[in-house]
Amino acid sequence: MNLYSGPINHLIEELAALPGVGEKTAGRLAFYVINLPKERVERLANALTEAKERVHYCRECFTLTDDEICPVCANAKRDHQTVMVVENVRDLAAYEKTGRFEGVYHVLHGAISPMLGVGPADVKIKELVERIGHEDIEEVILATGSSLEGETTAMYISKLIKPLGVKVTRIASGVPVGGDLEYIDEVTLTRALEGRTEL
Amino acid sequence: MNLYSGPINHLIEELAALPGVGEKTAGRLAFYVINLPKERVERLANALTEAKERVHYCRECFTLTDDEICPVCANAKRDHQTVMVVENVRDLAAYEKTGRFEGVYHVLHGAISPMLGVGPADVKIKELVERIGHEDIEEVILATGSSLEGETTAMYISKLIKPLGVKVTRIASGVPVGGDLEYIDEVTLTRALEGRTEL
Repeated sequence: MNLYSGPINHLIEELAALPGVGEKTAGRLAFYVINLPKERVERLANALTEAKERVHYCRECFTLTDDEICPVCANAKRDHQTVMVVENVRDLAAYEKTGRFEGVYHVLHGAISPMLGVGPADVKIKELVERIGHEDIEEVILATGSSLEGETTAMYISKLIKPLGVKVTRIASGVPVGGDLEYIDEVTLTRALEGRTEL
Repeated sequence: MNLYSGPINHLIEELAALPGVGEKTAGRLAFYVINLPKERVERLANALTEAKERVHYCRECFTLTDDEICPVCANAKRDHQTVMVVENVRDLAAYEKTGRFEGVYHVLHGAISPMLGVGPADVKIKELVERIGHEDIEEVILATGSSLEGETTAMYISKLIKPLGVKVTRIASGVPVGGDLEYIDEVTLTRALEGRTEL
């Protein structure tokens, strides 16, 4: 049924194809957009095409950047011998926010997931091995998530690169700071116990 | 802090300005968009500008359309003497979906809300009065929402147009079909009682 005019239906369809945006939300957004000033809509449309056109992978670490090499890799003050492997750009941003990591990154753009049919060749693991071959890397910190996929990916990479003579570490998993023990799942609690350190 | 490159930050900003889209969702959407094929991003961007450029108010009922007169108003088979007044285009679409209303509409684009500073002049009430003056309208069905704003708007319009000699009705409010009484609020239950009909 064609309840709205063509351009509205078309916009709703396009918006509903975005992740986490259902038919109703798409409708609300579409009418919101139609009521915005023309310049605002154009700015949004341009931001979309610009981001798509100008952003690509950093040649070194595969994060997204509009330069050839991202600001982190281009920064001579960073420790280029320590590489943190993350699943995606948002995880990189989360660690950058802490301001406590001085090294550089390697963005996998995914994690190995046999369930979803994502194999080692579908993420940037080969590229990591190449970096270890070409660059003077001392330590690789595996900072993939603590999900099944993240753990699998960390294990896989660890087995693959340890023989290359590089130090391989994994970020700690345990009780989040400020977390109330009673609300934390059993797996995390077990991990926290196993990973206990002497004071 | 500039965690991402310029075009990504810009896109996140623009997306985060949409209603119901927070910083995190905007980030997720931005990275999703950047990973889409170029044609898909262009289609989305075009859908936005097209909807904004081509869609405007129907000259008769003020719904959104890309024609001069919307398909409902242009349809000679509809009963042009019965006008249903709705708050917005989504409410119009909801009634069209029922397929049980044969008349035409009048879209207010809002409801009177002293709290939000929306007065009678901010919604298309003057335009409704003009329609009653120029067209041969027998009945005006007030289908504004059953919120305080919807009720206020219905009351205001009723007082304004009854003196013009038009029949004014209000859609029934009561227990939704299939609704479990125990989960329904007291105001609705009271309305349902007051509005009871003889069997």
